Amino acid sequence: MISIDLNCDLGESFGAYRIGMDEQVIPYITSANIACGFHAGDPQVMAKTVAMCRKYGVHVGAHPGYPDLNGFGRRDMNVSPEEVRNDVIYQVGALKAFCDSEGVPLCHVKPHGALYNRAGKDYSLALAICQGIRAVDPELKIMALSGSCMIRAAEEISLPYISEVFADRGYQADGSLVPRSLPGAMILDEDEALNRVLRMAREGKVTAVTGEDISIRADSVCVHGDGEKALAFVRKIRQALLEG
Amino acid sequence: MISIDLNCDLGESFGAYRIGMDEQVIPYITSANIACGFHAGDPQVMAKTVAMCRKYGVHVGAHPGYPDLNGFGRRDMNVSPEEVRNDVIYQVGALKAFCDSEGVPLCHVKPHGALYNRAGKDYSLALAICQGIRAVDPELKIMALSGSCMIRAAEEISLPYISEVFADRGYQADGSLVPRSLPGAMILDEDEALNRVLRMAREGKVTAVTGEDISIRADSVCVHGDGEKALAFVRKIRQALLEG
Amino acid sequence: MISIDLNCDLGESFGAYRIGMDEQVIPYITSANIACGFHAGDPQVMAKTVAMCRKYGVHVGAHPGYPDLNGFGRRDMNVSPEEVRNDVIYQVGALKAFCDSEGVPLCHVKPHGALYNRAGKDYSLALAICQGIRAVDPELKIMALSGSCMIRAAEEISLPYISEVFADRGYQADGSLVPRSLPGAMILDEDEALNRVLRMAREGKVTAVTGEDISIRADSVCVHGDGEKALAFVRKIRQALLEG
Amino acid sequence: MISIDLNCDLGESFGAYRIGMDEQVIPYITSANIACGFHAGDPQVMAKTVAMCRKYGVHVGAHPGYPDLNGFGRRDMNVSPEEVRNDVIYQVGALKAFCDSEGVPLCHVKPHGALYNRAGKDYSLALAICQGIRAVDPELKIMALSGSCMIRAAEEISLPYISEVFADRGYQADGSLVPRSLPGAMILDEDEALNRVLRMAREGKVTAVTGEDISIRADSVCVHGDGEKALAFVRKIRQALLEG
Repeated sequence: MISIDLNCDLGESFGAYRIGMDEQVIPYITSANIACGFHAGDPQVMAKTVAMCRKYGVHVGAHPGYPDLNGFGRRDMNVSPEEVRNDVIYQVGALKAFCDSEGVPLCHVKPHGALYNRAGKDYSLALAICQGIRAVDPELKIMALSGSCMIRAAEEISLPYISEVFADRGYQADGSLVPRSLPGAMILDEDEALNRVLRMAREGKVTAVTGEDISIRADSVCVHGDGEKALAFVRKIRQALLEG
Repeated sequence: MISIDLNCDLGESFGAYRIGMDEQVIPYITSANIACGFHAGDPQVMAKTVAMCRKYGVHVGAHPGYPDLNGFGRRDMNVSPEEVRNDVIYQVGALKAFCDSEGVPLCHVKPHGALYNRAGKDYSLALAICQGIRAVDPELKIMALSGSCMIRAAEEISLPYISEVFADRGYQADGSLVPRSLPGAMILDEDEALNRVLRMAREGKVTAVTGEDISIRADSVCVHGDGEKALAFVRKIRQALLEG
Repeated sequence: MISIDLNCDLGESFGAYRIGMDEQVIPYITSANIACGFHAGDPQVMAKTVAMCRKYGVHVGAHPGYPDLNGFGRRDMNVSPEEVRNDVIYQVGALKAFCDSEGVPLCHVKPHGALYNRAGKDYSLALAICQGIRAVDPELKIMALSGSCMIRAAEEISLPYISEVFADRGYQADGSLVPRSLPGAMILDEDEALNRVLRMAREGKVTAVTGEDISIRADSVCVHGDGEKALAFVRKIRQALLEG
Repeated sequence: MISIDLNCDLGESFGAYRIGMDEQVIPYITSANIACGFHAGDPQVMAKTVAMCRKYGVHVGAHPGYPDLNGFGRRDMNVSPEEVRNDVIYQVGALKAFCDSEGVPLCHVKPHGALYNRAGKDYSLALAICQGIRAVDPELKIMALSGSCMIRAAEEISLPYISEVFADRGYQADGSLVPRSLPGAMILDEDEALNRVLRMAREGKVTAVTGEDISIRADSVCVHGDGEKALAFVRKIRQALLEG
């Protein structure tokens, strides 16, 4: 058995609107990143999703985003580090209350969408996020892109972290992701993606787009539950890890 | 010295919008009910207001309301008890995170506006609110209208409570407020209001609109900081309590 | 051929969230009620939906609701008639701009959800809605429940109207709907529902739950496009009207 | 008498929140830019503000912004040109409906805050805004920074425009504003500001920060009504224009 955390975004529905196949994907994952009402999710969805995590023994994480429901948190916003820090505290606290209500611990915080992307490259923003998390509870872990500014900021303030890797993305020699605009950005072959994950988990190595093997810390791999194909891949990766 | 808690709504500003004279009123009060972002307030305002409470040694309370920023939580909404329970958990958790961040305890929860009014008369809604509060932390107190459904619901589930009285409102023989549409609803004379508060605090008695003295549990009196006149009354009542 | 308008709520998606089978149902309907951003819909969805109506030659209507996206406009709110009037003007104007942009006329306005329900029974609210519509354009028609306060208010201020009937609802002797809590509220048999619509359209008659035939003005019948079953019924009714 | 339009942002209040001194400044201005509910304003405020413009004979303009009430539209957002186009159509249409309701024409559209700033330098965004405005009504004018991308885009699609100048900002030799981070960005002396406006209005000339006179098209000057000092300056400039 190969041990690596499988994390997935859950709880992205809102009011009458449904997104995701939470019930189908949850048996196969080990950590859930639950939307907190800014870019997706609402109190009813959060309550239901945390209860579902308890039932399946899945680690609960907060998934704070920009205050942009219409853009699903995918549009970058020029929110200041200080504002982001407080937006993170707010959202993490809101989700933590549902954890307290269900008697499960809040384990980690993974920034969402455009916030995740900007904080991966903007150190002052990354630091503000880490400080916001630590302000709520210094035992909380940040889940963030391996080798990103968020990991550096976490190390700087001794915030525990979960280094996240992607099955379907190419890596550059310095450990960063190949930008989506460049060749090699996406790993389209499913078996190749699977084998890369297994190797990252087992050996801490991945082959960069430039051909050389690089070291990578792979605590968790991000999976998706937003379609039949994604779901099939999650089952496959789960199976491979159990057998590996 | 007469001992009674003075509570006031704070942190009702939002983004570029300012409401209230928080800095001026906070030296005179002992408990603050801080808006949580649904009917007023935002993460920046919450952070600032909790920090201010810490500085002045004022008890911090959450002030959850209906999700109606445009109506300032003053318009009744047909939100189900289950929805209200989760909306309360969310808002209380969000504010609690700022308390954790500042190292101050969250002491109480006071429902706001139309939610406070409906829950005063609707037992199932009142119960849902109490259950939401207890789900986050069973030591949290609900602050609610003396003799209302909220107090009954709190007693029912053994949630600690703070029984709130009003200086400027008339009471009926059964301890409920005289409806605003009826004569005697408002105590317009400031000295009379002051004396009523002092007697409620000292003796647990108030004269009903029908003339008889009734018993009333007065743990806290609600004051306002939204204008010069309100502010002057707060100073006066504070002074009278110190001298009383 | 029997002539009756078939109206359906469209454009209820929001950002990344999809609701409804707009593309599938639109070939079968003659009028669309398009959400205006308060309870559902957003500017992108509105633009796309109006363009689709133009393509299919479907009449465009505005579908204003309460400002409650999380509740999908289904929770009653104590919004004053004056506020509702302005909320209607705002939403109708927003949709009208997309009509102007596409070069199609805005034909009607149908209140949504809890607003529709309350205005059906609350004359002052109904009047405020009618006045809001007329303020934008006195040629606009209100689409409203046959025999409701909205129809009365429209007549009162000479606002043109479209009297709407329901295929799957029982009627009382006075022309009002049987409340959902009472027996006979729903017409569960699809063929019966179909025959009732045809008769309402052809003869202006329907059999009340108490057995007698009553007169009813049936300008339009409300259909749904939110599922395979609903879609099948729309096709069936469309076919029956063409053959009738 | 010197003829130049004086424009001011009005209608920025929201619900219980008040911003600006609309009643005091309106007698002195000739054009109002009214917030449309995305970054500020709401249907009640819009109705009231348009009615006030009618009373004072002030030209009504729409003031669309980013969908960011908490940031007052001052935080840049990565909204796509297509999304901005539709957001503009929506907001312009909403305000136009209040104009129709009051029987006054909608005259112009001035983008707000971060949207104004980005569209001044981003041609594709500027073009999307102009196209959105023209889609609603090709007679509408855009009000925009003299010499900016918005003016260029308006010329490109033959949309009429109002070239706006600032009394308190320095200009570079190419007609653009001196960035706020550089010396000479702000004209701090009130008399100097006043004289610059008069000269821009009269001669179409202004002295650049580098010393030379440059040509500038000054159709309108932006004034503010958000404080006593701003108000005093508006009165002064109004007086000077009447006497000039």
